[in-house]
Amino acid sequence: MPEMNRRLVLANRPHGMPKESDWRMESAPVSEPEDGKILARALYLSVDPYMRGRIATSKSYAKSVEIGETMVGGGVGRVVASRHPDFQAGDTVESMAWGWQDYAVLDPKITRKLDQRYGSPRDALGLLGLPGLTAYFALLDVGQPNPGETVVVSSASGAVGQVVGQIAKIKGCRTIAVAGDDRKIDWCVRDCGYDAGVNYKTAKDLPAALAAVCPDGIDVYFDNTGGPIHDAVMGLIRLRARIIICGTISNYNRLGEPDMGPRHLRQVLINRARIQGFLLWDFQHRYQEAITQLAAWAKEGRIKYREDVMDGLQNMPRAFLRLLTGENFGKLLVKIADA
Amino acid sequence: MPEMNRRLVLANRPHGMPKESDWRMESAPVSEPEDGKILARALYLSVDPYMRGRIATSKSYAKSVEIGETMVGGGVGRVVASRHPDFQAGDTVESMAWGWQDYAVLDPKITRKLDQRYGSPRDALGLLGLPGLTAYFALLDVGQPNPGETVVVSSASGAVGQVVGQIAKIKGCRTIAVAGDDRKIDWCVRDCGYDAGVNYKTAKDLPAALAAVCPDGIDVYFDNTGGPIHDAVMGLIRLRARIIICGTISNYNRLGEPDMGPRHLRQVLINRARIQGFLLWDFQHRYQEAITQLAAWAKEGRIKYREDVMDGLQNMPRAFLRLLTGENFGKLLVKIADA
Repeated sequence: MPEMNRRLVLANRPHGMPKESDWRMESAPVSEPEDGKILARALYLSVDPYMRGRIATSKSYAKSVEIGETMVGGGVGRVVASRHPDFQAGDTVESMAWGWQDYAVLDPKITRKLDQRYGSPRDALGLLGLPGLTAYFALLDVGQPNPGETVVVSSASGAVGQVVGQIAKIKGCRTIAVAGDDRKIDWCVRDCGYDAGVNYKTAKDLPAALAAVCPDGIDVYFDNTGGPIHDAVMGLIRLRARIIICGTISNYNRLGEPDMGPRHLRQVLINRARIQGFLLWDFQHRYQEAITQLAAWAKEGRIKYREDVMDGLQNMPRAFLRLLTGENFGKLLVKIADA
Repeated sequence: MPEMNRRLVLANRPHGMPKESDWRMESAPVSEPEDGKILARALYLSVDPYMRGRIATSKSYAKSVEIGETMVGGGVGRVVASRHPDFQAGDTVESMAWGWQDYAVLDPKITRKLDQRYGSPRDALGLLGLPGLTAYFALLDVGQPNPGETVVVSSASGAVGQVVGQIAKIKGCRTIAVAGDDRKIDWCVRDCGYDAGVNYKTAKDLPAALAAVCPDGIDVYFDNTGGPIHDAVMGLIRLRARIIICGTISNYNRLGEPDMGPRHLRQVLINRARIQGFLLWDFQHRYQEAITQLAAWAKEGRIKYREDVMDGLQNMPRAFLRLLTGENFGKLLVKIADA
């Protein structure tokens, strides 16, 4: 009898906050890879904010998952069978196009073989994967931080934010963490070297709380959230501030509806500020540069990386809901199988 | 008896739309220039949107005019007396720091002697002055238009907008005029070479009207207004769009109040767009480059420049109100004296 593949398909298109029942587990025999493809078994699957956009109907940078289709997502695993000369059974691989399933037939063009000299398979979904690379290119290439500047990061302990804060510190900046949980703030300051933090959920007056820890204003804002944190920052930007729009999770459950707030255009004009959107895909040709540098910083002990690991494919929907509500603490992963 | 200088001082700080009585005419003997300064008599004074910000109390890029102080503004005129070796009586000069008055004592450091080979004294307040230079640097350096791209300009027939549209056309772009008057739109298309125009005041559905003339989306938006035009454009931006924030006149009479609207952050992220504020001061070291190029284009007949000229110092407040309500048609100037 053939091995079975479990997969989670989209059962309902959520409006507002998704629920676990928006996905449904299905089982089918594991496919044989066609010529030129590889078959791999998942070790860890990644849980990322962008997935919310992929199950919305509003325009995004990629097409939406249809009802009945396997939910999209990245993962790492081991090659089980290969019909491509560059991959062999036993290789450890990472792909953005894994999907929420045990076994994936992968296209080698968008699959990378992991070199374990840089880090563990899990690292390929975190510090040395999409979140770490996002932090690296968005902060350094778009944000262009200079020594002595004040860098504010929202979702500061999250998969991307924790790396942003530590790179900014390495570059000589003053770093301010914004998060929604005092434990996260404490960890950012104690373990990630952030100079100060603001809890946006408990601050009575968020602009005032942020102003208190940014007495000279804000030079770079790494925006993982949008919403009221964005607004509070915009009131404090300095001349030639750079605002990197990397995520808009505050509005993810209202996609398609207008995200109302102050326009800030006067602030942008007066300060000759730059607000710029970021998507990692644009930097594909430079991934190796970032992996080499991030792995070196990790080895030197200058960057640490906190993960929040859950267990079992069946828990992917629950993991995703924890991410959307900010209950996770660190990069959220789900362990699918032992090595 | 000494010659008298008439000047308009700020009498009341307006909240909302200013009125003529917010300024008061005063008379005083003409001052002698102190050592190192020059005394000049106005030919034309300029009327510009930025002046609204200078009589507001909210933070801007320059300090506010106090009650009883001479209203700020630029002008051109003739030197009457000079106590600086670089200037002589009879020279034609332009200064941003003229003020609403007949005679100004000018600081040579912020006064330029006009070379009439480039244009007339009036040109120094228009095509070859603040508006033309703003159009040149903001479009070319911040907007970076490429041939074939779609460039949308708000206040398209205004002092800045008309130059933006014509430079964009010279650079091979498709150009779309947004204005609030069909006569202005007609002139933009017929005389400035805009490919199409939208009347934002009469369009029933502004986003749809704009979409109809921008079937491929918008690559560059030269934003002189902010507000609903900004919002309509943001819904149509293309990959790597550039939005130049050059003026926010739609909100000028509510300065200090939040300018509420959609945040557009998702659009910025998805399209990796760049929104950037512009202030001409940052390009002072390159003014001559722009003047030379703009004068050459004008001489070749590739750029024309429409002015709206009123008469008499006493009409400065009325001219300014016409500007704020969009009643002017072209660069607004007030003639103060004959050459």
